[in-house]
Amino acid sequence: MDTRKLYEFNVDERMEIYALIKSADVRVAKNGNQYLALVMTDTSGEMPGMVWEATPEMVATFKAGEVVVMQAVRQVYQGKPQLKILHIGLPDLAADVDPDDFVASAPMRKKEMEEEVTQLLFQITNPNWNRIVRYLLQKHADTFYAYPAAKKNHHAFNGGLAYHTISIARLATSVAAQYEQVDRSLLYAGALLHDLGKTVELSGPVGTTYTTSGNLIGHIVLIDEEIVLAAHELNIDLHAEDMLLLRHVVLAHHGLLEYGSPVRPMVLEANILHQLDELDASIQMIDTVLEHTEPGQFSERVFGLDGRMMYRKNAENK
Amino acid sequence: MDTRKLYEFNVDERMEIYALIKSADVRVAKNGNQYLALVMTDTSGEMPGMVWEATPEMVATFKAGEVVVMQAVRQVYQGKPQLKILHIGLPDLAADVDPDDFVASAPMRKKEMEEEVTQLLFQITNPNWNRIVRYLLQKHADTFYAYPAAKKNHHAFNGGLAYHTISIARLATSVAAQYEQVDRSLLYAGALLHDLGKTVELSGPVGTTYTTSGNLIGHIVLIDEEIVLAAHELNIDLHAEDMLLLRHVVLAHHGLLEYGSPVRPMVLEANILHQLDELDASIQMIDTVLEHTEPGQFSERVFGLDGRMMYRKNAENK
Amino acid sequence: MDTRKLYEFNVDERMEIYALIKSADVRVAKNGNQYLALVMTDTSGEMPGMVWEATPEMVATFKAGEVVVMQAVRQVYQGKPQLKILHIGLPDLAADVDPDDFVASAPMRKKEMEEEVTQLLFQITNPNWNRIVRYLLQKHADTFYAYPAAKKNHHAFNGGLAYHTISIARLATSVAAQYEQVDRSLLYAGALLHDLGKTVELSGPVGTTYTTSGNLIGHIVLIDEEIVLAAHELNIDLHAEDMLLLRHVVLAHHGLLEYGSPVRPMVLEANILHQLDELDASIQMIDTVLEHTEPGQFSERVFGLDGRMMYRKNAENK
Amino acid sequence: MDTRKLYEFNVDERMEIYALIKSADVRVAKNGNQYLALVMTDTSGEMPGMVWEATPEMVATFKAGEVVVMQAVRQVYQGKPQLKILHIGLPDLAADVDPDDFVASAPMRKKEMEEEVTQLLFQITNPNWNRIVRYLLQKHADTFYAYPAAKKNHHAFNGGLAYHTISIARLATSVAAQYEQVDRSLLYAGALLHDLGKTVELSGPVGTTYTTSGNLIGHIVLIDEEIVLAAHELNIDLHAEDMLLLRHVVLAHHGLLEYGSPVRPMVLEANILHQLDELDASIQMIDTVLEHTEPGQFSERVFGLDGRMMYRKNAENK
Amino acid sequence: MDTRKLYEFNVDERMEIYALIKSADVRVAKNGNQYLALVMTDTSGEMPGMVWEATPEMVATFKAGEVVVMQAVRQVYQGKPQLKILHIGLPDLAADVDPDDFVASAPMRKKEMEEEVTQLLFQITNPNWNRIVRYLLQKHADTFYAYPAAKKNHHAFNGGLAYHTISIARLATSVAAQYEQVDRSLLYAGALLHDLGKTVELSGPVGTTYTTSGNLIGHIVLIDEEIVLAAHELNIDLHAEDMLLLRHVVLAHHGLLEYGSPVRPMVLEANILHQLDELDASIQMIDTVLEHTEPGQFSERVFGLDGRMMYRKNAENK
Amino acid sequence: MDTRKLYEFNVDERMEIYALIKSADVRVAKNGNQYLALVMTDTSGEMPGMVWEATPEMVATFKAGEVVVMQAVRQVYQGKPQLKILHIGLPDLAADVDPDDFVASAPMRKKEMEEEVTQLLFQITNPNWNRIVRYLLQKHADTFYAYPAAKKNHHAFNGGLAYHTISIARLATSVAAQYEQVDRSLLYAGALLHDLGKTVELSGPVGTTYTTSGNLIGHIVLIDEEIVLAAHELNIDLHAEDMLLLRHVVLAHHGLLEYGSPVRPMVLEANILHQLDELDASIQMIDTVLEHTEPGQFSERVFGLDGRMMYRKNAENK
Repeated sequence: MDTRKLYEFNVDERMEIYALIKSADVRVAKNGNQYLALVMTDTSGEMPGMVWEATPEMVATFKAGEVVVMQAVRQVYQGKPQLKILHIGLPDLAADVDPDDFVASAPMRKKEMEEEVTQLLFQITNPNWNRIVRYLLQKHADTFYAYPAAKKNHHAFNGGLAYHTISIARLATSVAAQYEQVDRSLLYAGALLHDLGKTVELSGPVGTTYTTSGNLIGHIVLIDEEIVLAAHELNIDLHAEDMLLLRHVVLAHHGLLEYGSPVRPMVLEANILHQLDELDASIQMIDTVLEHTEPGQFSERVFGLDGRMMYRKNAENK
Repeated sequence: MDTRKLYEFNVDERMEIYALIKSADVRVAKNGNQYLALVMTDTSGEMPGMVWEATPEMVATFKAGEVVVMQAVRQVYQGKPQLKILHIGLPDLAADVDPDDFVASAPMRKKEMEEEVTQLLFQITNPNWNRIVRYLLQKHADTFYAYPAAKKNHHAFNGGLAYHTISIARLATSVAAQYEQVDRSLLYAGALLHDLGKTVELSGPVGTTYTTSGNLIGHIVLIDEEIVLAAHELNIDLHAEDMLLLRHVVLAHHGLLEYGSPVRPMVLEANILHQLDELDASIQMIDTVLEHTEPGQFSERVFGLDGRMMYRKNAENK
Repeated sequence: MDTRKLYEFNVDERMEIYALIKSADVRVAKNGNQYLALVMTDTSGEMPGMVWEATPEMVATFKAGEVVVMQAVRQVYQGKPQLKILHIGLPDLAADVDPDDFVASAPMRKKEMEEEVTQLLFQITNPNWNRIVRYLLQKHADTFYAYPAAKKNHHAFNGGLAYHTISIARLATSVAAQYEQVDRSLLYAGALLHDLGKTVELSGPVGTTYTTSGNLIGHIVLIDEEIVLAAHELNIDLHAEDMLLLRHVVLAHHGLLEYGSPVRPMVLEANILHQLDELDASIQMIDTVLEHTEPGQFSERVFGLDGRMMYRKNAENK
Repeated sequence: MDTRKLYEFNVDERMEIYALIKSADVRVAKNGNQYLALVMTDTSGEMPGMVWEATPEMVATFKAGEVVVMQAVRQVYQGKPQLKILHIGLPDLAADVDPDDFVASAPMRKKEMEEEVTQLLFQITNPNWNRIVRYLLQKHADTFYAYPAAKKNHHAFNGGLAYHTISIARLATSVAAQYEQVDRSLLYAGALLHDLGKTVELSGPVGTTYTTSGNLIGHIVLIDEEIVLAAHELNIDLHAEDMLLLRHVVLAHHGLLEYGSPVRPMVLEANILHQLDELDASIQMIDTVLEHTEPGQFSERVFGLDGRMMYRKNAENK
Repeated sequence: MDTRKLYEFNVDERMEIYALIKSADVRVAKNGNQYLALVMTDTSGEMPGMVWEATPEMVATFKAGEVVVMQAVRQVYQGKPQLKILHIGLPDLAADVDPDDFVASAPMRKKEMEEEVTQLLFQITNPNWNRIVRYLLQKHADTFYAYPAAKKNHHAFNGGLAYHTISIARLATSVAAQYEQVDRSLLYAGALLHDLGKTVELSGPVGTTYTTSGNLIGHIVLIDEEIVLAAHELNIDLHAEDMLLLRHVVLAHHGLLEYGSPVRPMVLEANILHQLDELDASIQMIDTVLEHTEPGQFSERVFGLDGRMMYRKNAENK
Repeated sequence: MDTRKLYEFNVDERMEIYALIKSADVRVAKNGNQYLALVMTDTSGEMPGMVWEATPEMVATFKAGEVVVMQAVRQVYQGKPQLKILHIGLPDLAADVDPDDFVASAPMRKKEMEEEVTQLLFQITNPNWNRIVRYLLQKHADTFYAYPAAKKNHHAFNGGLAYHTISIARLATSVAAQYEQVDRSLLYAGALLHDLGKTVELSGPVGTTYTTSGNLIGHIVLIDEEIVLAAHELNIDLHAEDMLLLRHVVLAHHGLLEYGSPVRPMVLEANILHQLDELDASIQMIDTVLEHTEPGQFSERVFGLDGRMMYRKNAENK
């Protein structure tokens, strides 16, 4: 068994590795036979491959979420990597394979993220905001540290939601240090809550889709609902200025009505949160796309970056 | 005292009438003296006029909301009607003047509107929707039948909010009768609630402005908040399909993200409610603008109608 | 021979039925042989399927518009239904098959539609409008009751044009009943004529395409041409106000210049007609898309609805 | 009496000249007295000025369209030229003043324009197009050579419509000479007819406004109506390809649906006509705006040029 | 002489202070007399006021850039502050008044800014970028530390250009510390140069207007010109990757073509610089507008913030 | 060997011809074997075709840029022409085949184009512009007459850049003859330089792609760079009005910021150059698309023409 990962093999090289089936479509070839269109993945990325002449048993066995043993050759199809699968099978029962080991995760461990969030909570000095944020983070603790931040655009990995939240909070700390007029409590409270509705909007970390609530209500109103109920539960006046501000900062974080915010940012901290959200998301997207771009080349056009191509430099000057 | 109303006098005709001061700005003339820029109103419409050389007593006396006795001549200034105010004073104490008598109102009485709403409630057969709608209409009963539907665009008169709601509900009844696939309960519940957040967004029927909640949260999310709290109060499951649908229909009623809905209409009834809302609002705006347009002429461009001019026909063919 | 229709078979089920070939493309497989890419249809909907190794005789026989006997299995390809065609042949000469029986039609019979149109004509009291509308409906009687209302977006079935027209006229009746300022004659005349130009713009009910006139002139100006010539024929003054109004209402019915109307609606009835046109078209499109969507699921994005997905409810509450 | 024109006087210089009243608004000053807000004009341009304390006789005398004798001083108000009118009166009966002498006109005489049009007609070799164009130019001969091409944007002077038409036809001749694939007959026929509907859309050369037909139907459909009726009169088949092409070229000449064309240019000549229309109109607008801009300065922003400022060069290099 | 500043007086309070004339328009009143429309300013802000009946001497004396002694009363006109000027005169010759003392400046002194820039230069390790940046900052040293960053939108004060540049560089430092993939040299070099073209585009710190170069070429291409010439001067290869990158980062800093960048950001550092530019500019604009907004109130709509109103909180929670 | 060209064979006809491989993609068929997806071309156009079962030797031999001997049958696939390749091989060594003979070229020879450019240069009377244009045309003489004007949209053939430039210059001559206010020197200088940056932006006449400079800087700023350096070299003052004008005309030639011009046209000649550029490009695009459209048919939608279809007339009337 090779110890290298999917993307560590070169074109035309043969591999025998464990990999996770990310998705498995059953299709019918022109000769009428069924075949499997698989997407194989490990932490180095994902790559498609076909299994021709799939028997009903194979269709039943090789499903999304399964870890398999695979013999394959890396090839190129229309400029993109793909696998020519020579053999696919289930691992030995003795083999210690855990699907979670094959999924990309945030570059911080959950424990570290929790500690950083705790430090941030100490800096939210407005007692109502502090209580609301603590209440909601505790309520969604399981999902907040496990979910991705999006279905595919950015931070689409395990723990991506918490990691994206922390990245924004760090940027917020820098901005608050530089501009003294910023209300840190409001900015941090808004940063911690802004995407928490995604724990309801998305189905979970694996095979992420939108839930019915996610489609019909959307994560922005879903987190507002949570804030409303939390305030009710904690006996906090929803129409006092501090609660209007917290809700506004969260509601306005997409910046423009066209992007789904029902109001545009009308307080300084809402404006900043929106811009830091865009900044962190775009840095993460650029990072991801450049990982699979050769030095000196331009990437494909990236939907989440308004269709821009990104350039990977030949030389770094850091 | 004349018994005619403001707009029933011709140009150059002199009037002596009661009128309500709708707004009163204190300004400084080029000679350094203060004067009052008033907007006078009665149920026939509103017309501006100046009171030159205003003493401090006059400034203190003639404020928005006061009913006054006025001698004036109707004139035209830059194509628009205005008043040359000859004399202004307070009515006799004996005079029985009520500011409410000078404000335009919906063409239905409150009692009639309440009855029609009651009839609609009977047709909402889903028990959760029925309870939520009853609960919220009762909670906001005072304001729902008194507020205008907007600050100025359409139905900007006393009771305009309830009247606009009822107009849409009537249209909804016709549409449901014609298209059998329509879920009447959902459409009526959505129609009754869709603009109820305006009772929080707007300051009230007189001198209407946006509240801080109105600006920072907006009436769409404000009514969603009310639905969320009502469901909590009434022990209704917020994430069951029926509640998702009701909230969706209300959230989506502006039709486009650009118009402030956080989601676009994704169920049939949301789509219909949005279109009926536009239909009734545009009919009411056209009506208002044509009232002050001469037959055979085009109106000014109307902001709420995307800058269109409207034409008033010479002859009616009804 | 099965008596069920195409969409009444389940996935993997085998069928032997009559069906109409809606379109037949001859293609060349990678091995250089020709095959037929067919779209089969009956009143339950349409489904694609391939006939491999098509001989020249087969290519000459199995053309769009033919009714055939087909043995096939329903399958799923990339999430969409398709047919694995096992055998295809011509029906017995004795078989009584009429292509028209396999095409979806409006849910009203022609006779009923004609009667409803006649009733509407009685309500057009302006004599010029009445004569123009009668003249043009008579001139296009054959096509008006046979054509679809569009190539594919909405009401794309036999008789769809008349049915869409009648649906709008019914809505117009309700609106006119509710808003007394509406000029019924103008609204009904406009409703009856608004899409009549499609009888020239489209090629016909089967295999509908755009004609050269349709592409170069468009149905809005084509019906204006017809009104101009009709008025000339009937000695009606084209520049009297009533004729300007009728033409305006028809010309403006797309509502926005971007949608191909050369003028925006500037009279009340033009505004209403445009909005009812959108309302009926969107209801019909939603209906169609939800027919092939499972309860509790979201449809694909619909081009004619600005790319929205529509949700099919699990439970109805009518 | 000075022989110089309005714009030939410097700031602070006193003038005594004949001038035409272009428009005269009666307004009420803050002291309640009436005054006249005039716009005075001669062939050098137009300039506003006030006549304070206007008696009813003056109001009745000094109306739009009158030629007057005026003593005035040229001044600057908010960066723009205006007149301080010292005296205004009617000319001696003996004075030979004709309002037409004070209106800007096209830089070609009617006779010259007629001759150039005649030459163009000879080059339209398709007999149907030739007959239609001759028929319509003859029908509108009086207005075609007298009307402006627009209410104010471009070619807003006497004879502007014919002059703009000829300018485009000249450009068309050059283009046809350079690109041999161009169908000259079609391009010239389209050029000659494209704006002829403005003779119905606009009220006339003086105090130009939009007619009711102009607003409700628009000049593009108005000329299509004329072509339709002309073809009918001349027994020409409206649905033969040549007539579809001619109508298409005219209908599409605004280039974009947003600009009021019901179809976009789909034949080469329609595409060219649209672009030459824009080219000539923009050259004429730039010309006009630079006339009142000092060398080395930027003009005000020009609405018809998408809000651009234009720069007037210090030195010419021709 | 009062020691308070313009904005430190309350409405109706009388002041006698030194102030700088920011602009002085000569206008003609309706009675034909000239008056001066002044904008007075000191470091607390600017306020308009009129001087009626201005003699030619006064017109010649009270010009933009002059410091004067003024007796005035603060008033409100249409909701905005204005001055009723009672007396205006020149200061005693003995008075030590310097126009620069009345102009708002960056909150850092030039010396501090220079030092911070020097520190940044040390961190640009790519020798070509380092030399280019040093060369250009030295060349424009006088203007870089004196000019505003814009004519009026943001940082429209003395030294605003350098201060805005430093603010962005500080944000860049934080971002580079958080995201290790960032090329600091490139980001800092881009930040220091990005707006330097404004020293050519704008006329200077007082009465700032656009130069002819500024209008015709624009500051983005003007700084590119400077980089091109500097590279030529310093014998640096303009088409090596490092120079393409530096120019790209500067050219792309407006982010969108619509905002005047000829290319969109295609490298990570260009993307970050654009976003930090927007972040700092918006924070500064919000700051400025809230200075003149009362707690609990919404500001006017701000052009530079897409027409948003901003809310000034009642209570701070820092 | 046939002497006809690719597009001179009918469908189903067999050909044996020389052709140039324009592009060659190696792909993997579903059976795991490699095949070649070729695009074959000669001066009549290009057509795709597959070579199944490609051996490694074939992959190494049949590359873009090679001239081959090909036996094939013309077919139709999804409405578009394609080749069924029966045999492919290298030409005899004796065969005199030059890849350049298979590439479409401008309809003028280089010599003719050079002469026409020389004539234009004589008409640029401003000495600075004359020297700059001569200097740059000489510097880029090799590429200017060889490069295409675009990667694919318009004038995508050998010599297309010079040919497009000359076409615009001819149009410019006509316009300057018609409008005497035009500065010919400026218009011709701008026309000759406007697209010269494409010699740096594009990789060359064969297999044209964007260079890194092209993507990161763009041809508009690349030619500005050349003008800046040329002026420096020739000791011409870059900030004198004439040089600002020349640069402006070139920078603004895309007309709108959205299309990549950093400034909009603010002088007459910039406005004209932009419009002539669009005119010539659209004529050339329409020409190309109609070449492959049948008479009486509409083309496919053309990206470079905003998605319009174009109509090919049945009869010509020239």
